[in-house]
Amino acid sequence: MAVDESVKDASVHGFDALLIPGGYSPDKLRADENAVRFAGDFVRSGKPVFAICHAPQILITADVIRGRRITGWKSIVQDIKNAGAEFLDQDVVEDGNLISSRHPGDIPVFVEATLKRL
Amino acid sequence: MAVDESVKDASVHGFDALLIPGGYSPDKLRADENAVRFAGDFVRSGKPVFAICHAPQILITADVIRGRRITGWKSIVQDIKNAGAEFLDQDVVEDGNLISSRHPGDIPVFVEATLKRL
Repeated sequence: MAVDESVKDASVHGFDALLIPGGYSPDKLRADENAVRFAGDFVRSGKPVFAICHAPQILITADVIRGRRITGWKSIVQDIKNAGAEFLDQDVVEDGNLISSRHPGDIPVFVEATLKRL
Repeated sequence: MAVDESVKDASVHGFDALLIPGGYSPDKLRADENAVRFAGDFVRSGKPVFAICHAPQILITADVIRGRRITGWKSIVQDIKNAGAEFLDQDVVEDGNLISSRHPGDIPVFVEATLKRL
């Protein structure tokens, strides 16, 4: 995939929504302060943020899920709770601009909720 | 590597120490309640627990680092703090029976501290 812009130079103002995929990429992204800032800015902006599987990890590092309802991959449940969020074991959780799902099996309802917001 | 015993059947009483390697295996192990119970029992037993890189993730799920001093891989710093532990950016951190290091570059001092305990 061709990279259009470095996250270091990216601003929330240039985008309508943010989709954070899962797998182990959030573990790498959360170690990059620019990626963390960008994801945090997005949640704070009120624009839609779609997060699935391990995606909440970067939102935890950005400290933007405190007091929010969210779901995610089973291995990070305790991290989500410790970050001050309410973990819900549902296929899709919508809390304001934050839309999240647990795992690949949830993708159909996740995509449906995502498209509804866009 | 040949597996001697399933973690489901393993007890702290059969071992002198526990070494938890890093990489992405702790992410898989922390989703297994038997692995989490075993690691938690070990920390509570007072026997030495050696943890490097992502290893603290399973200790977070076991909720056994609250009030302890520990280090780990850069991506999980916020998770460690949110779990109630004090994160120290040092090559090796020794707090009682809990000995931890940050990354592969720390392995020489990690091994030295480990051997001293054994």
